Amino acid sequence: MNKFTDAEREAVYKAIYTRRDVRSFLDKPLPDEAVFRILNAAHHAPSVGFMQPWNFILINHKDVKDKLAWAAEKERKALAIHYEGERETKFLELKVEGLKEAPLTICVTCDPTKGGSHVLGRNSIPETDMMSTACAIQNMWLASCAEGIAMGWVSFYKKNDIRDILDIPPHIDPTALISLGYTDTYPEKPILETVNWEQRQEMEPLIFHNTWGNKEKTASSSQE
Amino acid sequence: MNKFTDAEREAVYKAIYTRRDVRSFLDKPLPDEAVFRILNAAHHAPSVGFMQPWNFILINHKDVKDKLAWAAEKERKALAIHYEGERETKFLELKVEGLKEAPLTICVTCDPTKGGSHVLGRNSIPETDMMSTACAIQNMWLASCAEGIAMGWVSFYKKNDIRDILDIPPHIDPTALISLGYTDTYPEKPILETVNWEQRQEMEPLIFHNTWGNKEKTASSSQE
Repeated sequence: MNKFTDAEREAVYKAIYTRRDVRSFLDKPLPDEAVFRILNAAHHAPSVGFMQPWNFILINHKDVKDKLAWAAEKERKALAIHYEGERETKFLELKVEGLKEAPLTICVTCDPTKGGSHVLGRNSIPETDMMSTACAIQNMWLASCAEGIAMGWVSFYKKNDIRDILDIPPHIDPTALISLGYTDTYPEKPILETVNWEQRQEMEPLIFHNTWGNKEKTASSSQE
Repeated sequence: MNKFTDAEREAVYKAIYTRRDVRSFLDKPLPDEAVFRILNAAHHAPSVGFMQPWNFILINHKDVKDKLAWAAEKERKALAIHYEGERETKFLELKVEGLKEAPLTICVTCDPTKGGSHVLGRNSIPETDMMSTACAIQNMWLASCAEGIAMGWVSFYKKNDIRDILDIPPHIDPTALISLGYTDTYPEKPILETVNWEQRQEMEPLIFHNTWGNKEKTASSSQE
């Protein structure tokens, strides 16, 4: 197994801990080589049965970005109806303009038909294709962070709007809209924590031992 | 935004490129502090609407590990019926004993009810809770890699078997069974590539520009 020095290990944790969802970008183009490295990081994510279900639609055309922002804004307004009072006001302040501002938008898709009818592992748990795609997106996020490039993941949209705008076949899932760009407003804490929408939970209560809900840590059998 | 030195950036890519799915482990206990750091990395994954849907059941009890391995083995045999000839033989060689060997198994769960009825973003795309959990698992994988600890993600099982064994409530999803441990057989390439089950795809054909299937890269509007 590849050894990591202490400094290398800390660099991995630095990416994990400082990664943020960003919604404001500068109008400054991204180097092609950095974009390539970010996509290559995505492509080296784990995937169920090694199916590699992802594709990447790179969107830099203004008209297309405007249409995506329109779809997200429409969904945002529709969703706002479910929030009332203070939460509604906060919700309406959350921006989707990042989709227009960012020099590059990437639609990450998931093709459930890749690898044929009986993909190893996906046969038992079909949603593992989506989860593989999510791992690819997390790799993109950490790689972007290491490249000094900010990333946002937008999940306000109706999938069929995105299919229509990007000409995506009906069996392909438009899993995520990703904004990439430089920023001068990188949040220290998650935006939703700063605006008091949600707080980070304590970690200890999330952990159980041997069965759900059990807080008692017993000695491992190999140590008995 | 936090600057990464070239060395720090390379360390992040080292984790991304050398991460492997491992199925053979040594009978050697893991340091509690490393396990804590790996779980804390998971807990710092992005989550839709900051819902943090995950819990972690840490399994070190031999009886419980044996039951999980039984459930995985049962599913593996059932699935083998779908593969014929050479593929069946290869399939039957794929091991699930990692679940018994590894000193620690972690069942990562996803609670779709966390954050209430209208989690931001999940209102539009319900499976974003699972995808958040997958991001947490990818963080665990990269953190393990940086810690010199091998990890395997098992997805051969019926979820209700795992609910029964670990006493998980019906509304909670047992998203993944993770094996963690030291190993002396760390694969250089993905196991499924080595056994000629699947090959890594070329990256270039996975990338489109502005619409699905379009290979022509046009100048971005901001550069026009």
